[in-house]
Amino acid sequence: MDKIFVTGAAGFIGSNLVDRLLADGRSVTGWDNFSTGQREFLQSALAHPQFRLFEGDCLDLAALTRAMAGCDFVFHLAANADVRFGLEHPSKDLRQNTVATFNVLEAMRANGVRRLAYSSTGSVYGEAEIIPTPENHPFPIQTSLYAASKAAAEGFIHAYCEGFGFEGYVFRFVSILGERYTHGHVFDFYKQLLEHPERLKILGDGSQRKSYLHVADCIEAMLHVVKLGTAKSAKHRVETYNLGADEYVQVNDSVRILCAALNLQPRLEYSGGARGWIGDNPFIFLDTKKIRATGWKSALSIEQGLVRTLQWLRENRWVLQKR
Amino acid sequence: MDKIFVTGAAGFIGSNLVDRLLADGRSVTGWDNFSTGQREFLQSALAHPQFRLFEGDCLDLAALTRAMAGCDFVFHLAANADVRFGLEHPSKDLRQNTVATFNVLEAMRANGVRRLAYSSTGSVYGEAEIIPTPENHPFPIQTSLYAASKAAAEGFIHAYCEGFGFEGYVFRFVSILGERYTHGHVFDFYKQLLEHPERLKILGDGSQRKSYLHVADCIEAMLHVVKLGTAKSAKHRVETYNLGADEYVQVNDSVRILCAALNLQPRLEYSGGARGWIGDNPFIFLDTKKIRATGWKSALSIEQGLVRTLQWLRENRWVLQKR
Repeated sequence: MDKIFVTGAAGFIGSNLVDRLLADGRSVTGWDNFSTGQREFLQSALAHPQFRLFEGDCLDLAALTRAMAGCDFVFHLAANADVRFGLEHPSKDLRQNTVATFNVLEAMRANGVRRLAYSSTGSVYGEAEIIPTPENHPFPIQTSLYAASKAAAEGFIHAYCEGFGFEGYVFRFVSILGERYTHGHVFDFYKQLLEHPERLKILGDGSQRKSYLHVADCIEAMLHVVKLGTAKSAKHRVETYNLGADEYVQVNDSVRILCAALNLQPRLEYSGGARGWIGDNPFIFLDTKKIRATGWKSALSIEQGLVRTLQWLRENRWVLQKR
Repeated sequence: MDKIFVTGAAGFIGSNLVDRLLADGRSVTGWDNFSTGQREFLQSALAHPQFRLFEGDCLDLAALTRAMAGCDFVFHLAANADVRFGLEHPSKDLRQNTVATFNVLEAMRANGVRRLAYSSTGSVYGEAEIIPTPENHPFPIQTSLYAASKAAAEGFIHAYCEGFGFEGYVFRFVSILGERYTHGHVFDFYKQLLEHPERLKILGDGSQRKSYLHVADCIEAMLHVVKLGTAKSAKHRVETYNLGADEYVQVNDSVRILCAALNLQPRLEYSGGARGWIGDNPFIFLDTKKIRATGWKSALSIEQGLVRTLQWLRENRWVLQKR
């Protein structure tokens, strides 16, 4: 793993990963269509001699294949991460998550690259029957287009590992927090409170229970497992790991932590209902025994992650204008 | 359920379903791209006043949407069913199974059609850990592009049921046998024996265990469940049912049954190995308790199904030239 191709390189997680890999002494080729990626996130990478950046979309298979030439490992992080708005443009998830992943696999095949890590989501469990939810949870029902498109991508990755001898690492993330965070509830709450410090609108009844992980912990976990090479000896040459904290919080806990950090006491206005939107999952908490058994553990608590995310947003208000 | 749209209407299962629905007094609109469908299978349907046929591909969303106008239920059976050759043209499964299904969902949404039945496959369980395999088997690893593309389609159907209030029936089939059967091991074996009655080449070591269901039983099962409307009250408005016989046979049993029916004693030549090809599943046997609990049961044994399939092929040798 010396020459690494990162899709979604200008994104929240992608750009943090790029910086981490460069610090590790790897050569990195970044790929991003800049639909939500930010050139600012690659400022330090772009000054690094071991970094190359290509602007392109995963739907352009020919360009993707050319850009990947010479690489030996792929982190496929590019995605439409717009979980909430899937029903407004259903084909976006299909194209940007499923077809895009398929193209990454085809570009790898064309280039003889056979190792990849993929950022999937804990949403693929739907409304899980078992919580905390293990990787071998019963065959789920997909409750959002986002999750359906990610689960679909997982399946194609499996088939390439089995059929073409690829080595695959599928990581099912909870929501990720941290520096360069550009969407999600911390973003929404902070943006609201900047405009109207006296009130905060909350989707659902605030009792939704969610787990979060700091981006640095997320990246360490992926690199840890990939370095171990656990999929090499897996039955179908693919391993799946839940990635999350060992705890969860209610949306109301997040509100309390964020308001305390901002020293604000807004009036709370709930939209009501157990779900914030159609397809919202009222309780996401992943069982992370499998990855912890490899020796990884998270360094930051959810509260620390929330506070650091807010701190970064306060220092980078420009990002609030980007969406 | 009066005006029914059937994709893959000229196929093996589709054409049998069309005839059955017309006999039941329904209006049927058939859709087929004739990539593997046979116009001959629709001969009697085409003479029926309640049948309309459109030639088109599910990838042509505009034409599909126009053809579906006025219908109130969709049986989506069109698919690339070429399980064995996925690795030779990986994008075919993505396009013909996943994207095609997505387009069917979009055409339904555009037309206000909200009820569908889908022919998925027992292959989605991969190499199942639990046999007989129940619908809530642990989240599987896909071992073929075919299964990955079908599992992906299932997920999008789920998301449309949850997000747009569709009512969905997902049927995971074992291999289907019977009149108008146009591919599979009975087809291959009979074709071989017509050309070389003295020897039979068998993929794998012959010990693969598989379950089969006769097409008439398959169709009765789907209609039975759809009439009950079980998905209306399901948590996510979608129900999944395994469809198979209550038994399985080894490939060697099939060989014995078919050779006896043909009164032949060929030399058996095995390619060897537990799997006939990469992605072949050495043991497929589905737990069908869930659908049997609704009152359905199969009428024909696997042996009866095999013999009737062979009989039909003997009377319709023209079909052997089609592939």
